[in-house]
Amino acid sequence: MSRQAEQAQQPGKVWLVGAGPGAADLLTLRAARLLAEADVVLHDALIGDDVLALAPQARLIAVGKRCGRHSTAQRFINQKIIHAARTHARVVRLKGGDPMLFGRAQEEMNALAAAGIEYEVVPGVTAASAASAQLKVSLTRRGIARSVALLTPRAGEGEHPSQALRANADTPTLALYMASHESMAIARELMSYGRGADTPVALVENASHPASREAFTTLQGLSEHTVGALLGCGDQAPEGPVLVMLGEVFRDEMQARTSSTSSESARCIQVSAA
Amino acid sequence: MSRQAEQAQQPGKVWLVGAGPGAADLLTLRAARLLAEADVVLHDALIGDDVLALAPQARLIAVGKRCGRHSTAQRFINQKIIHAARTHARVVRLKGGDPMLFGRAQEEMNALAAAGIEYEVVPGVTAASAASAQLKVSLTRRGIARSVALLTPRAGEGEHPSQALRANADTPTLALYMASHESMAIARELMSYGRGADTPVALVENASHPASREAFTTLQGLSEHTVGALLGCGDQAPEGPVLVMLGEVFRDEMQARTSSTSSESARCIQVSAA
Repeated sequence: MSRQAEQAQQPGKVWLVGAGPGAADLLTLRAARLLAEADVVLHDALIGDDVLALAPQARLIAVGKRCGRHSTAQRFINQKIIHAARTHARVVRLKGGDPMLFGRAQEEMNALAAAGIEYEVVPGVTAASAASAQLKVSLTRRGIARSVALLTPRAGEGEHPSQALRANADTPTLALYMASHESMAIARELMSYGRGADTPVALVENASHPASREAFTTLQGLSEHTVGALLGCGDQAPEGPVLVMLGEVFRDEMQARTSSTSSESARCIQVSAA
Repeated sequence: MSRQAEQAQQPGKVWLVGAGPGAADLLTLRAARLLAEADVVLHDALIGDDVLALAPQARLIAVGKRCGRHSTAQRFINQKIIHAARTHARVVRLKGGDPMLFGRAQEEMNALAAAGIEYEVVPGVTAASAASAQLKVSLTRRGIARSVALLTPRAGEGEHPSQALRANADTPTLALYMASHESMAIARELMSYGRGADTPVALVENASHPASREAFTTLQGLSEHTVGALLGCGDQAPEGPVLVMLGEVFRDEMQARTSSTSSESARCIQVSAA
C-alpha cells in the first residue's frame, strides 16, 4: 500500500493481548477470540506455535526481543505495530504472560496514543500464577505471607539493579522474572539485606509447558550454584525462561522434595563465557 | 449415596480453578473446558451467573464466604469439596481471580492431600492484571517501577495488620486486595513509612465487569475519604470488590482525569455504622 493510501484510510484497532505463561489453553477466551479474528498478529519470540495456531487467518509477524537486546528493538516494534494498524482493521499485539507486567506495554500504548490509534488491553495469566499452580504452592498464605512481590532485576537507564531488590527485601514471597542470569548475585544481595540463608527457593523453567523443569534450594544454595546447575543443566543454561521464587510458603514443598529435575524433555543450551 | 458406597468407590479428582477477575471471557480456555466437563462446581459467592453458565451440566454449590466470615467457613468448605470428590468424578472448585493469590487454596490443597484425593490447580487472571488493563496503565515500567507487590491487609491470627504494609512500604507499585474497609488507615500508615502524600492512587471496583467504576486520587486523598466516597457512593459502600492501587506509574493517568466515576451501572449499598 502506498503512503498516501495508508494515510487516507481509517486506522485499525490494536489489542495488546496477554498470551499467558505458555500453555495454549491458558489463554483467555477473549484472547483466543481476538486471535481467531485478527488480520495481523505481532508476537514475542517466546510465543509457541500452538498458541499462534489460534490465529489461522492472520499474518504473523515475530517482533520478539530476547533478553539483552531490549532498548534497540522497542522503537522498531512500536513502528511495526503502528504500521500494522494503518494497513489492517484488527491487529493483535501478543505478549507473553500479562501485558501489564514486565511487558513494556506502556511504551507501546504511548506510541499508539500518540499516533491516534485506538487500542485495548486484554490481561493474561502471569508466570508466577502458573508456576505456583504447577508447584501446588500458594504464593500467599494466612499467617505466613500476606504479600507477594513480582519483580525483575533488569535495570532501566540510570537505575541501579539493586533498587528493586532492596525495596522488596522484606516481602514474604518474591517472584523474580528475568533473573536467572544474575541469580547468584541476587541471592547474596538478599542475604545482605537480612533474608535468611535457609529461605526456601523454588525455580520453575517453562512454567505450564510440558517441558517444564523445577528445582528447590535455599537462598544459600542459590548463591552458590547457577540456575542452570540447579535445574540439571550442569555448565549449560536452561533453554526456557526461568522464574525464581522464594519465601517461607515454599518450605513444605522444598522439604518434601529433593532438588531433582522433574522433566527430561526440557533442553539445555551451550552458553559462551560472558 | 450411603457412607459405605461412598467409601467403596474410587474418589474423583478436584481442579482448583481460577475464574479470573469477573468477565466470563477472561476465564482461560482450560477453565472453560473443565467447567463444561464438571459434575460438580463449588464456587465462591462473587462468581457471576455468566461464568457459572459455562458449566451447564454441573451441580452448582455456592460455598462462598464474603469478607469478615472467613475462619468459620473454611473447614466447612474443605469438607464440602472432599465430599464432592468422594461422590463425583470431576469436581471443580472455582475461585475468583487466581487461586494462588489470596484464595486460601493452601488450606484446601492440604485438606485434599490429607484425604488422599488427587487435585490440580488451574491459574487465572488476577484482579491487578485486569484493573491495570482496564486503566491502560502498566504496573511495571522501566525507570519508574520494576516491582509490584500484591498484598492484603487482612490479618491472620497472631498477625499485626501492619506487617504486610511495612514490608512493602518501598515497593514502587502496590495493589491492595480486600483493603477498601481499611483504606484510610492504610493511607496514613503508608505516609508514616515515608510514601509521599501526593503518591497517585487508582481505585477500581469490579475490574473487568461492565459495571466497573474507577477513581483516581492521591495518598493524601485516600487518607481523608472513604473508598465509597471516592467512587461516588457518598456515605454508602460500593457493592463490588475494590482494588486499591498506588504508585508513580499512575501519575499520568491521574493527572489526565478528574476523580470522576466512570460507570452509572455500578451500585452502592447501605452500610451500618461499625
